[in-house]
Amino acid sequence: MSRSAIDLRSCIRDIPDYPRPGIVFRDITPLLLDAAALSEAVRRLAAYGAPRAVDFVVAAEARGFILGAAVARELGAGFVPARKPGKLPHETISAEYILEYGVDALEVHADAIGHGANVLIHDDLLATGGTARALCDLVERLGGHVVGCAFLAELAFLGGRERIAPFDVCSLVTYDSETA
Amino acid sequence: MSRSAIDLRSCIRDIPDYPRPGIVFRDITPLLLDAAALSEAVRRLAAYGAPRAVDFVVAAEARGFILGAAVARELGAGFVPARKPGKLPHETISAEYILEYGVDALEVHADAIGHGANVLIHDDLLATGGTARALCDLVERLGGHVVGCAFLAELAFLGGRERIAPFDVCSLVTYDSETA
Repeated sequence: MSRSAIDLRSCIRDIPDYPRPGIVFRDITPLLLDAAALSEAVRRLAAYGAPRAVDFVVAAEARGFILGAAVARELGAGFVPARKPGKLPHETISAEYILEYGVDALEVHADAIGHGANVLIHDDLLATGGTARALCDLVERLGGHVVGCAFLAELAFLGGRERIAPFDVCSLVTYDSETA
Repeated sequence: MSRSAIDLRSCIRDIPDYPRPGIVFRDITPLLLDAAALSEAVRRLAAYGAPRAVDFVVAAEARGFILGAAVARELGAGFVPARKPGKLPHETISAEYILEYGVDALEVHADAIGHGANVLIHDDLLATGGTARALCDLVERLGGHVVGCAFLAELAFLGGRERIAPFDVCSLVTYDSETA
């Protein structure tokens, strides 16, 4: 028995000129607010991970946490939060990534991922790929295998997918230009 | 057919003298890392919400996001992220709360919760109750009904439960003193 898929794109709200003129911010909060869309997004992200024998989902603070743990649960996997510096209380490893105006970093607990574990990377949005690349680097330094990267939305015109190569990328909604 | 419940408390790690001497930090990351414990925590938080006809789960940035959306999905509800000031792109309302050294605030989108909606509040930890109280205030100002507040862990000796009264509180793990 088939049913129509929910149009997740229609649940993402465009905010023109935010955070500054010329940028269209893709606001996922209407999607989260819609129980059916929320459930569908988790189901489809987990469906990407399911054949990959995922042991852990690693996601970036803060918006990556929202769907990341739900996807982990759907997969029967554990969840690893990657946090801004100084937020995790135990021994950590850190990876820097470049922002438009400066450098930021993400940390994970050093005991978070066992050697040889299969890891799915998640964030809500793939833009330039800096955050996702940092997550991949952290996983590999802990001896994990990145088995894929699953995003709710992708700004394809920013080239993030190339930045993460050779790792595989799945995104549920793709934007081909800033305004499309 | 019955099975033993997972001992969630044993999955939470004590970090003595963090973030400063005399404080025992309750680190939930080992629980998140354990797929069975993660799933059990979501299941039990949702079981508290299930008889309350929850329309939306509201949770606080950042750790509240981890289980909050998974609980929302389990309940067939929507998810509303409450964020630090300036993080949400659309019209917001804001509530301040007092920290040990100053004041912070949380915001939700003004269109997030419809009048008369049933709302479950979630955060990972109930300490003094300042954050949870701010979340309850935001929900009520938008015309929602707080039908309960569900936490993974509670530091009962800090009196947060009284701060949130008369709203009902559920916590899966309770600490009766700083060191117990």
